[in-house]
Amino acid sequence: MSVLFKQMTIIGVGLIGGSLALISKRKQLVETVVGYGRKRGGLQKAAAMGVIDRYVLTLPKAVEEADLIVLATPVGTFERICKAIAPHLKPGAIVTDVGSVKGAWVGRMEALLPKHAFFVGGHPIAGREKSGVEAATADLFQGSRCILTPTPATDRKALKKVASLWEKAGARVSELGPMEHDQILAAVSHLPHLVAYALMETLAHPKIAKRNPVEYSAGGLRDFTRIAGSSAEMWRDIFLLNRDAVVEMVDLYQETIEKIKKRILEEDGPGLIEIFERAKAIRQKAIQ
Amino acid sequence: MSVLFKQMTIIGVGLIGGSLALISKRKQLVETVVGYGRKRGGLQKAAAMGVIDRYVLTLPKAVEEADLIVLATPVGTFERICKAIAPHLKPGAIVTDVGSVKGAWVGRMEALLPKHAFFVGGHPIAGREKSGVEAATADLFQGSRCILTPTPATDRKALKKVASLWEKAGARVSELGPMEHDQILAAVSHLPHLVAYALMETLAHPKIAKRNPVEYSAGGLRDFTRIAGSSAEMWRDIFLLNRDAVVEMVDLYQETIEKIKKRILEEDGPGLIEIFERAKAIRQKAIQ
Repeated sequence: MSVLFKQMTIIGVGLIGGSLALISKRKQLVETVVGYGRKRGGLQKAAAMGVIDRYVLTLPKAVEEADLIVLATPVGTFERICKAIAPHLKPGAIVTDVGSVKGAWVGRMEALLPKHAFFVGGHPIAGREKSGVEAATADLFQGSRCILTPTPATDRKALKKVASLWEKAGARVSELGPMEHDQILAAVSHLPHLVAYALMETLAHPKIAKRNPVEYSAGGLRDFTRIAGSSAEMWRDIFLLNRDAVVEMVDLYQETIEKIKKRILEEDGPGLIEIFERAKAIRQKAIQ
Repeated sequence: MSVLFKQMTIIGVGLIGGSLALISKRKQLVETVVGYGRKRGGLQKAAAMGVIDRYVLTLPKAVEEADLIVLATPVGTFERICKAIAPHLKPGAIVTDVGSVKGAWVGRMEALLPKHAFFVGGHPIAGREKSGVEAATADLFQGSRCILTPTPATDRKALKKVASLWEKAGARVSELGPMEHDQILAAVSHLPHLVAYALMETLAHPKIAKRNPVEYSAGGLRDFTRIAGSSAEMWRDIFLLNRDAVVEMVDLYQETIEKIKKRILEEDGPGLIEIFERAKAIRQKAIQ
């Protein structure tokens, strides 16, 4: 396989950034992987694990030789990082990200970068219940989906190179506009996480917690708790940055809960069955 | 191992009833398992699979020789079945059930049975995403929990025999009052299912469904869809029969969603982190 990028710099070597580094090295998609982070300890661990070739503790130095810069820190940090690296990017450098929210900031990012560098928004839909570089694996993206979010301003060659990287990492690549991406993700990812967190928080309510209900939990609850194991900081950023689409979905969700509650209170058995059968049909689609 | 019951009759040979029959036969806890059901086809299949020794298509005949009768049909049918079998129970016969709701009807059941027979409420907390006898396995209860719900009227010897059956089937047995059982299960099982159904129903809303969001779903959503695969009739009965406790939990849940939504709208990052960290702590308890 041919080398796609001579130097790839991963900003934030955690689960996603670390896994992309691992597969890129294994498949020789890059010659060198440089890691940047704020904590030396984590970077030393990543280097010892063979996830990165070397690490750098200052942003300008981390990116000055890079052909591809991958933003893999929480989404809330992207703008600050972009401002810091913009003056140090070499001609033709591509900046991409792995953030779960795109929306308006993709345009801001494009505006922040110098004309001789290119921005390509990306979102690999992959994750595990664990976070951190210790959880990184070369097969994390195998069979998963990666959404790229080009705009009219996106350089087509840069887009193609980033798409090629993800495809060779094992992902099925598709394209969505940044806003469309955010609305769809609010429905299939952000709302499910909010719903799971709300369920856990309900069980923590003093009225319920005093009965020690978790003692009696079965598979149903365990499925929810898996989702609640992910990084709190990441989810704070996602909910705040995708606020409008998330709140819109939450409102629709609450209406649905009210509808189900009404059918329970009115003892509307057929009305409940109708909802449950529809859920089963969606399930069939989702697990295909 | 010594035989606990000469003849066990399973009313409703599906996932739970079938699995209890299988482990009881494998461990020789019973001499004969008789199956009753409304459809000959399902019973023929159960007999061919070796789940039951033989089947009977009329309730009186199915129970007249039985030492243990297990109600494993949807909870909504229990009262009708109890009325039909009561005149045909032999002295010392024990009637138990595997229903997910107990509450007030345990008392009604005790009143319906003749003085020479005993009722013991039971609820094995086990399940799979599939239902039906095809999904039955002898190890379904291994390491799971089974709650028995005795009342002041419960015969202690009968309770002990039913507890022994479940322990030998691999379950950890504990006791709760019928009402306490319903409140705890509303929190750890009924609410999670309602929440999952509501999520699926939200994705089915025309506003959302037109974007074909399920195409972009990841692990988070799949965890929810698993729960939505269970039997619609069973969940209708559970929600309607445990209406009060379920609605109380739903109201508390809606309050929690409002709290989270408020923190998102007010951009209260620390307030969100607080909730997410608490969820993680509950998760640690639940997966122990």
